[in-house]
Amino acid sequence: MTTFSNSRKVRIEWGDCDPAGIIFYPRYFEIFDASTAALFERALGLTKFQQLKTFNFAGYPLARTRAKFIRPTRFGDDVTVDTTVKFNRSSFDIEHKLSLNGTVCVECSETRVWVVRDPATGAIKSHPVPEDVLAKFR
Amino acid sequence: MTTFSNSRKVRIEWGDCDPAGIIFYPRYFEIFDASTAALFERALGLTKFQQLKTFNFAGYPLARTRAKFIRPTRFGDDVTVDTTVKFNRSSFDIEHKLSLNGTVCVECSETRVWVVRDPATGAIKSHPVPEDVLAKFR
Amino acid sequence: MTTFSNSRKVRIEWGDCDPAGIIFYPRYFEIFDASTAALFERALGLTKFQQLKTFNFAGYPLARTRAKFIRPTRFGDDVTVDTTVKFNRSSFDIEHKLSLNGTVCVECSETRVWVVRDPATGAIKSHPVPEDVLAKFR
Amino acid sequence: MTTFSNSRKVRIEWGDCDPAGIIFYPRYFEIFDASTAALFERALGLTKFQQLKTFNFAGYPLARTRAKFIRPTRFGDDVTVDTTVKFNRSSFDIEHKLSLNGTVCVECSETRVWVVRDPATGAIKSHPVPEDVLAKFR
Repeated sequence: MTTFSNSRKVRIEWGDCDPAGIIFYPRYFEIFDASTAALFERALGLTKFQQLKTFNFAGYPLARTRAKFIRPTRFGDDVTVDTTVKFNRSSFDIEHKLSLNGTVCVECSETRVWVVRDPATGAIKSHPVPEDVLAKFR
Repeated sequence: MTTFSNSRKVRIEWGDCDPAGIIFYPRYFEIFDASTAALFERALGLTKFQQLKTFNFAGYPLARTRAKFIRPTRFGDDVTVDTTVKFNRSSFDIEHKLSLNGTVCVECSETRVWVVRDPATGAIKSHPVPEDVLAKFR
Repeated sequence: MTTFSNSRKVRIEWGDCDPAGIIFYPRYFEIFDASTAALFERALGLTKFQQLKTFNFAGYPLARTRAKFIRPTRFGDDVTVDTTVKFNRSSFDIEHKLSLNGTVCVECSETRVWVVRDPATGAIKSHPVPEDVLAKFR
Repeated sequence: MTTFSNSRKVRIEWGDCDPAGIIFYPRYFEIFDASTAALFERALGLTKFQQLKTFNFAGYPLARTRAKFIRPTRFGDDVTVDTTVKFNRSSFDIEHKLSLNGTVCVECSETRVWVVRDPATGAIKSHPVPEDVLAKFR
């Protein structure tokens, strides 16, 4: 299967930064989570809210993430996040590259799992990514 | 009805602070929200998760808040949050005082609404605070 | 002095929302803080990072805030924040209106203080808003 | 060099959780950052604020992190974070294990860099971990 990608601009805000004057790194993961959502929104033509209604699933929580912080960013920076996805059976792999003025500042790899809610227990469990979702990424 | 109160200690963390080296004020509202939850947990003897199961409601979202920031706090500070509640019919008023070494740094007043989920539409709507909840605060 | 205003669009994200499926209200204050910064950036033609270098101050921390939550918003909503400022001597008053599809969801009033860092102690203290800042808002 | 460890309890709050009712994973990194700070505080007998004054450095930003999310946690959970450090020359490796009732929910490995601020440019750069810091971890 071919890969699918999306790019978006994000402003680093004052409140994202710590007393060293640079971004507090958990904020990067908020940015990456929204970047994964933006990729799905672009492929499916639905916001995540609409996706949850349409595909009857409970989200795509992270199983693993790995990030490398190459250069710090700081408030006032307008960074670009380039996001790519590859699907497995009931999971998918995401790559994010966050760059400033063409220089990569952070690289992040995620593995996420497609989950549905068990009607009996209410617990979430993994489930194959639906074929009509996969078709939109081709 | 008499008031009910709770007190808890909170550590201000590095990641709660901004490039000026002091707490980024939205973090106070995270602290206050958790302080309201702690007050209910103390009165009801149930975590918020257990409360939602037990009382069949959907939370107590804010209708109004008002805060006065008297002195800044910063990472490494161990602050005390004193929280008091007074109930109305389907809402309640909360007062938080956040202090450091006995000096008040922030005062906050909240009005929150007891809400239930409409079974037909899934929307949330206000509802009288149940009598068995009120009884626990007496 | 006349008022100065700015308007910006903000996407409410999955991670901004709580288990009730609506925005966790401290996230609104993050949005409002960034909206105040955006207003200053528009008036001064400088990011907050550049402002701190140019005007030799240490930020404009909140003295007071007051917010009214009229309707909840949720992930996938693209809200509009309209922000207005009026200056006093060493403080200024901000009004934010956050709306969705033309309906106001949150109203917020802030009073912020212009602060400088005391060279001797490193502590922050209030200071008159510089005339060259005020001039940009006229 | 032997390893040094610390353990602390953390309450997962309502506002840490997302519309799926489980923790929004960037909140784990906030917890891990505070857990690293707590480890240093325990070893050095100083809060991070006091450390920055005492050792004339600018923090220990992340170079790399890697996390595995084994089981979700949710609001009301009181989790335990066990944190261990091993020092290299100007960096150190941290391991966090976050568990609930004895079951590991998240494993995280970090590499952090000891940084100082360049007096000429104000930029941060890596620096060997001071010997008097290392001594406290033995």
